[in-house]
Amino acid sequence: MSEAKKSSDKCDLPAIVERLCTGEQTITRRAGTTCCEPLPSRADVIRMAERLRAALFPGFFGISEVRAETLAFHVGHVLDEVQRTMELQIRRCLAFSEDDASEGTRFDQAARRLTAAFFQRLPEVQHLLAGDVRAAYEGDPAARTPDEAVFCYPGVLTITNHRLAHELYRLEVPLLPRIISEHAHSITGIDIHPGAQVGQHFFIDHGTGVVIGETCIIGDRVRIYQGVTLGAKSFPLDEEGKPIKGIPRHPIIEDDVIVYSGATILGRVTIGAGSMIGGNVWLTRDVPPGSRVTVQPAREERFQLGGGI
Amino acid sequence: MSEAKKSSDKCDLPAIVERLCTGEQTITRRAGTTCCEPLPSRADVIRMAERLRAALFPGFFGISEVRAETLAFHVGHVLDEVQRTMELQIRRCLAFSEDDASEGTRFDQAARRLTAAFFQRLPEVQHLLAGDVRAAYEGDPAARTPDEAVFCYPGVLTITNHRLAHELYRLEVPLLPRIISEHAHSITGIDIHPGAQVGQHFFIDHGTGVVIGETCIIGDRVRIYQGVTLGAKSFPLDEEGKPIKGIPRHPIIEDDVIVYSGATILGRVTIGAGSMIGGNVWLTRDVPPGSRVTVQPAREERFQLGGGI
Amino acid sequence: MSEAKKSSDKCDLPAIVERLCTGEQTITRRAGTTCCEPLPSRADVIRMAERLRAALFPGFFGISEVRAETLAFHVGHVLDEVQRTMELQIRRCLAFSEDDASEGTRFDQAARRLTAAFFQRLPEVQHLLAGDVRAAYEGDPAARTPDEAVFCYPGVLTITNHRLAHELYRLEVPLLPRIISEHAHSITGIDIHPGAQVGQHFFIDHGTGVVIGETCIIGDRVRIYQGVTLGAKSFPLDEEGKPIKGIPRHPIIEDDVIVYSGATILGRVTIGAGSMIGGNVWLTRDVPPGSRVTVQPAREERFQLGGGI
Amino acid sequence: MSEAKKSSDKCDLPAIVERLCTGEQTITRRAGTTCCEPLPSRADVIRMAERLRAALFPGFFGISEVRAETLAFHVGHVLDEVQRTMELQIRRCLAFSEDDASEGTRFDQAARRLTAAFFQRLPEVQHLLAGDVRAAYEGDPAARTPDEAVFCYPGVLTITNHRLAHELYRLEVPLLPRIISEHAHSITGIDIHPGAQVGQHFFIDHGTGVVIGETCIIGDRVRIYQGVTLGAKSFPLDEEGKPIKGIPRHPIIEDDVIVYSGATILGRVTIGAGSMIGGNVWLTRDVPPGSRVTVQPAREERFQLGGGI
Amino acid sequence: MSEAKKSSDKCDLPAIVERLCTGEQTITRRAGTTCCEPLPSRADVIRMAERLRAALFPGFFGISEVRAETLAFHVGHVLDEVQRTMELQIRRCLAFSEDDASEGTRFDQAARRLTAAFFQRLPEVQHLLAGDVRAAYEGDPAARTPDEAVFCYPGVLTITNHRLAHELYRLEVPLLPRIISEHAHSITGIDIHPGAQVGQHFFIDHGTGVVIGETCIIGDRVRIYQGVTLGAKSFPLDEEGKPIKGIPRHPIIEDDVIVYSGATILGRVTIGAGSMIGGNVWLTRDVPPGSRVTVQPAREERFQLGGGI
Amino acid sequence: MSEAKKSSDKCDLPAIVERLCTGEQTITRRAGTTCCEPLPSRADVIRMAERLRAALFPGFFGISEVRAETLAFHVGHVLDEVQRTMELQIRRCLAFSEDDASEGTRFDQAARRLTAAFFQRLPEVQHLLAGDVRAAYEGDPAARTPDEAVFCYPGVLTITNHRLAHELYRLEVPLLPRIISEHAHSITGIDIHPGAQVGQHFFIDHGTGVVIGETCIIGDRVRIYQGVTLGAKSFPLDEEGKPIKGIPRHPIIEDDVIVYSGATILGRVTIGAGSMIGGNVWLTRDVPPGSRVTVQPAREERFQLGGGI
Repeated sequence: MSEAKKSSDKCDLPAIVERLCTGEQTITRRAGTTCCEPLPSRADVIRMAERLRAALFPGFFGISEVRAETLAFHVGHVLDEVQRTMELQIRRCLAFSEDDASEGTRFDQAARRLTAAFFQRLPEVQHLLAGDVRAAYEGDPAARTPDEAVFCYPGVLTITNHRLAHELYRLEVPLLPRIISEHAHSITGIDIHPGAQVGQHFFIDHGTGVVIGETCIIGDRVRIYQGVTLGAKSFPLDEEGKPIKGIPRHPIIEDDVIVYSGATILGRVTIGAGSMIGGNVWLTRDVPPGSRVTVQPAREERFQLGGGI
Repeated sequence: MSEAKKSSDKCDLPAIVERLCTGEQTITRRAGTTCCEPLPSRADVIRMAERLRAALFPGFFGISEVRAETLAFHVGHVLDEVQRTMELQIRRCLAFSEDDASEGTRFDQAARRLTAAFFQRLPEVQHLLAGDVRAAYEGDPAARTPDEAVFCYPGVLTITNHRLAHELYRLEVPLLPRIISEHAHSITGIDIHPGAQVGQHFFIDHGTGVVIGETCIIGDRVRIYQGVTLGAKSFPLDEEGKPIKGIPRHPIIEDDVIVYSGATILGRVTIGAGSMIGGNVWLTRDVPPGSRVTVQPAREERFQLGGGI
Repeated sequence: MSEAKKSSDKCDLPAIVERLCTGEQTITRRAGTTCCEPLPSRADVIRMAERLRAALFPGFFGISEVRAETLAFHVGHVLDEVQRTMELQIRRCLAFSEDDASEGTRFDQAARRLTAAFFQRLPEVQHLLAGDVRAAYEGDPAARTPDEAVFCYPGVLTITNHRLAHELYRLEVPLLPRIISEHAHSITGIDIHPGAQVGQHFFIDHGTGVVIGETCIIGDRVRIYQGVTLGAKSFPLDEEGKPIKGIPRHPIIEDDVIVYSGATILGRVTIGAGSMIGGNVWLTRDVPPGSRVTVQPAREERFQLGGGI
Repeated sequence: MSEAKKSSDKCDLPAIVERLCTGEQTITRRAGTTCCEPLPSRADVIRMAERLRAALFPGFFGISEVRAETLAFHVGHVLDEVQRTMELQIRRCLAFSEDDASEGTRFDQAARRLTAAFFQRLPEVQHLLAGDVRAAYEGDPAARTPDEAVFCYPGVLTITNHRLAHELYRLEVPLLPRIISEHAHSITGIDIHPGAQVGQHFFIDHGTGVVIGETCIIGDRVRIYQGVTLGAKSFPLDEEGKPIKGIPRHPIIEDDVIVYSGATILGRVTIGAGSMIGGNVWLTRDVPPGSRVTVQPAREERFQLGGGI
Repeated sequence: MSEAKKSSDKCDLPAIVERLCTGEQTITRRAGTTCCEPLPSRADVIRMAERLRAALFPGFFGISEVRAETLAFHVGHVLDEVQRTMELQIRRCLAFSEDDASEGTRFDQAARRLTAAFFQRLPEVQHLLAGDVRAAYEGDPAARTPDEAVFCYPGVLTITNHRLAHELYRLEVPLLPRIISEHAHSITGIDIHPGAQVGQHFFIDHGTGVVIGETCIIGDRVRIYQGVTLGAKSFPLDEEGKPIKGIPRHPIIEDDVIVYSGATILGRVTIGAGSMIGGNVWLTRDVPPGSRVTVQPAREERFQLGGGI
Repeated sequence: MSEAKKSSDKCDLPAIVERLCTGEQTITRRAGTTCCEPLPSRADVIRMAERLRAALFPGFFGISEVRAETLAFHVGHVLDEVQRTMELQIRRCLAFSEDDASEGTRFDQAARRLTAAFFQRLPEVQHLLAGDVRAAYEGDPAARTPDEAVFCYPGVLTITNHRLAHELYRLEVPLLPRIISEHAHSITGIDIHPGAQVGQHFFIDHGTGVVIGETCIIGDRVRIYQGVTLGAKSFPLDEEGKPIKGIPRHPIIEDDVIVYSGATILGRVTIGAGSMIGGNVWLTRDVPPGSRVTVQPAREERFQLGGGI
């Protein structure tokens, strides 16, 4: 307890507050602007994403007691609230990203237009998710019904957030898509960048540790297991030594591919349609359609008693 | 922002609601039935699981201010609430699974009987958990006291939810066990299927990425580290190409086995008592008692300067 | 449903409560003491950690609507509340750990002194975090701005909790640091023990499955990817067969090291400055500065059509 | 502090609990039945009444952000929830009143039928309330707009709850109407028994202290001020000395009557149409149409300096 | 139960919703506009008033744990939130009152200017309230300390809300002042119109049933008891038979007047300084300074046994 | 809007905060002490009173779903929480009243002793309340069952809070009793000072506007209606012109008295047993047992058409 002994019993809170408010420009610059537009609210964006889930899967999330007769009331009630929140948060994100408070009106109009564009896509998103649910049911012998997949499968939750975030990403909304994706990541341990393009009937089983990079392109009916990385190999730096952003650097996974747990696929490589990538495989080059890639059979090399690991 | 420009500034919310409510039968069928029994509430089930944790570890979770004198009041108060919630949610799960609203009374009785059977098991579950807590304390040099294991260890939280979920699984309650297990999975990254049979004094350290399949059988005093998979190799399909459900397809881990981080054991194989499975090992066949299985010693093959990964 | 049939429809709740309250001394002993000091509240400690995050990154977390003019009010308001909670919870942790209720006054004074010592460190912690944010921005081509790293990056969240927990660990506060670390672990899947010493400009990307042990020492400008373990090899047991606590047993990572996804480094080994440890590498010995360690290039051994995994 | 000194420092909580649970049959009898139907929940009934207010005056109460486009979603969402709550609470009230747990199914059907009958009346109730709002606007020179009356006037709030409670009273639902009326009473100090029959365009200004008895009949366009009592004179007792219930015993107020503050009208008397009853008047007999009843002009009898009141 | 029998068991909720949304223009017109500015939120205004109370009486309301050192943090934190809410709600009130959605920018500026003007007055309001607190302590023999008056006295709560509402009334903010006043009315039964002008050291004891009209002018050191009405006699109607608004029609109460319980003073009369108006007095004309007005001494006229009331 | 125009658009919030924190010693003195004991929390005291109500009337308030089997769990759970809150709040009240922070330990012990003494009285309080409930049922022809009185009668709510507050008053606990009484006052409009001594089977009907002073003594089976004042006439001042505290100055109401609505009884007078005090009576002298006191029969003096009030 020697550390504590050195300091006095009394802390000068106002002095500490003063230092926290002025010391680190990286952090406090934002709050310190005279701009009137507040920062985006991470908490509100997350709640909005959960409300959207309740609108896409009515009864499964949000209020349980929906009936055919009143279904539209609930969905409409939820979406109306989401629309308001989304317009507000997009406006904040735009102002935040451009660091420009003088154009409130322009941001207002853009936020309204972007929200409207997003809402137009919701039926298509729901259609894609219905396919993902069927893929989960068909891909897991432990699934009793498609409903169980909706209720319990982390892969379904993640792809739901991803498909929503991806629509916002395509509309070039800053920040929001990433917050929505990271929320799913924090719940499921599955990290899909909002930029990744994912086809129909996509299923991730178990999922913890999966990483799917920004420029990935994934075909239809692809299945992925826990611990799979679809990542970048390394990235070129610009003249200042900073990574150059926006270059295609993640794999293309064609239709009907299965990637088993722990496999790592790095770089802008293409995994041909119908291939099967075995567990723990480490891949950094193209694979033709119909391939099976597995690690060497003899992974358990030594049997012995005694000795350290 | 080209995407947004195409769409109008105005979104026709009622039209979107209409489409979301009618388009996808996979999703909206449930809400669209005329059945009066609402869907199970995932949120309520999760809250119930957390309340059970507060009853099994009084003071550690839920209200902190319990005393010897009032301990029974708190536990009784919590369990009474849990009993009501469980009866309600089991009834909904039964109706939901059988898709049959005409037999409310039958489901009522079954829900009451199943809840009573579950409650009978609670003291035994607490007894098993006390053993798991001791295993955690003894298995981790960083643990200062058994209490620290209760408060902080993700492995203890997960096995708590698992032992509760497994009792419901044995009673053939649909859906509920999986929701409870997935809740632990979302918190800890440890995915144990409710069907897995787990012996006494079980300890998972760190735990993120662990997957334990439905038909696993795990003995006493087993210890497992992060990233371990006890999974299925592949599963036979039925005539329609769908996976056949319910076949034993996951490993049997006998007493006193340790499985180190990142190891993968697949299929209905048996790991003999007292064995030690090293980190990153990939195992798809039986191992006799007392074995040590490790990967080849030379994993760091090349030392060099320069070059890509 | 045979299991359920055996048990009666009625459950004797008071009898079950009685058994839960008396059966397992490991669990109920704490609640059963006549000590007046309640147990620490995990929920309150977690909320406190989140409030601290709002004080260190004002506007990003907590209330979004901060302005330069009112920044100090918000930070001061939050810290005042944190100070009260921390004093209370430290007092409970001290009483809990020493199992000694007779010295309330002594614990009061210690809690006040320890809290004051912790608060003195907050500006320095904020300074370190500002460096971590810059490291995240510079280390990830997908990051658009440093702000995005604050809002969305699990690595930043985890190192925030870690730096706070580590200060408490250095002050020898029991339990609290671990609860704060585990909270980050549950959100991000990154498990850093509060004892680990971490240098400046630290960045963990994606992060799920990372484990960093208690006695790790990590230098400046280190970057780590998902699934990396910096763990112990094995640990000596004392005469009773219990692990000896407190021995240095985890790696030392020197400045400017990068460890790619899935790598495992075990034991008190030193990774020399500027080294690059490739994905999935398994390391249990020292590595000189400037090394590149990678797995064998040929991991995808067999291409074939047909056959099981 | 002599009282406290006599008692010990320690209280035997379990003993006190035991006494509270067994001592007073009047109070604990209800909780002590083996009936499975819980008591009605006063808190839920009150919340239900407030939700109904949000459905009748959309935008004024509940969510503020309604628009023409989404109005129906909000009203439908609110009413669907109200319907569930009302069915549940009516069922409990029926079981509670009849003290008969054996007929769950009968109560279920009755609750559904009564709720449906209540809902049929909602448009008519809204129509009456629109008239009451206009009466408030026209009756108070301080009212700027009819909207202000909806937002701020205690008289409008009270008549809203009354008209809802009265519909339930007419349907002979036990308990519920009274809880709804008392809720308005607690907010506004206006006590209208649910049994009172109130005509169109009714306005109570200020209102605190108004009492309107169960068998009152009030015509159209009646205006009442604070502190007015429309009460019973005395009531006949039965052979056991208990008041005989259900006899008409409160005034009949015909159309277009104004009753000023503090007036008291007692017994089954009739106040003829168009009459004006002055402040503080005490009336126990019939008054023909077109009357003006006032107290003697000389109420300020003595002017003097000094002396007590 | 004959009423219920007539109606069917099933209610057509969508049809009822349709009728509620379209039937009553008085009520639904507002929600039905295409105006984008939402209605004011009564709930938010009330919460704002309570927050203001916490800023004016720090420690007594809101957070209890304020200290000299951190007082400014709490007050500043609260006021910053109030400022945001007030600007938003004033903007809504302005748009609502003018029924004009096309001038969002103008309302924005006005709301900011009005809020700033209101805030300038807060120190003066606090100064007046400090005087009211002393008046309460000195005016009630049951008050132990001035602090007790702050904590418990309904008169102090009401005058707090009134002084805040009156400042907004003077700034001609629509609706808001009335909502704030009515909130106090609902809690205390004391109904002071926001327009009333109240001098220093004002004390209302008990207070239930007090009514103070819009154009009242009350001097310094006035004391009022429960059930007192300072009202209008009657009000002239315009050509359409509607009350003419804005005419001085309530009493002027000069300095140092006491009005005892149940007294009624009506019309634009002046109660001279230092007068004492006795309980239940009914006054409709001027009273010179220094008067004592009481009811006739013999109010208990008949003593007898038997007979009705 | 001239007022607003004068002030600038911008408000200097920090300056206003500064003035609010330093200007009014009457108000900010408390928060400005260096005393570590926080002020009592009015919100927590009110919640505590409501919890006590749930313990005294289990099932009627708090959780509805109590059963005979689990009754004790709920009551015990609630009381345990109340005990903690009460000890804390009494300690704060003692420190606050004595303005002495140096004797924390003494206050601790006193708070524990006073809480224990209060708890000993709870069964007796419940016994008295059971009598009050019966009195309400028997005294109101509109009451269908005693249960309805518990659920809905403001008189029962008020006497519940009063009997609790009176026990604390007898124990000389400062502040707390008054906060509890005022809470009931704010809900029901019935203002009973905690010092008033109230006998068995007490019933207040409707109740709004009732005031019962600190030194009142009320016998058994007394019934009181709305608007009744049992007050003080005037009070002697001390040499400094301040009211002398603690002198008996309110009426004594003997057994079996009924006081009808609007009656006012002032001063230390005695209303003899079995008397009936009529509506609006004004009494300032003793009344022998068995009296009937009523106002003059002819209160409606003039019948006429036309003219003002």
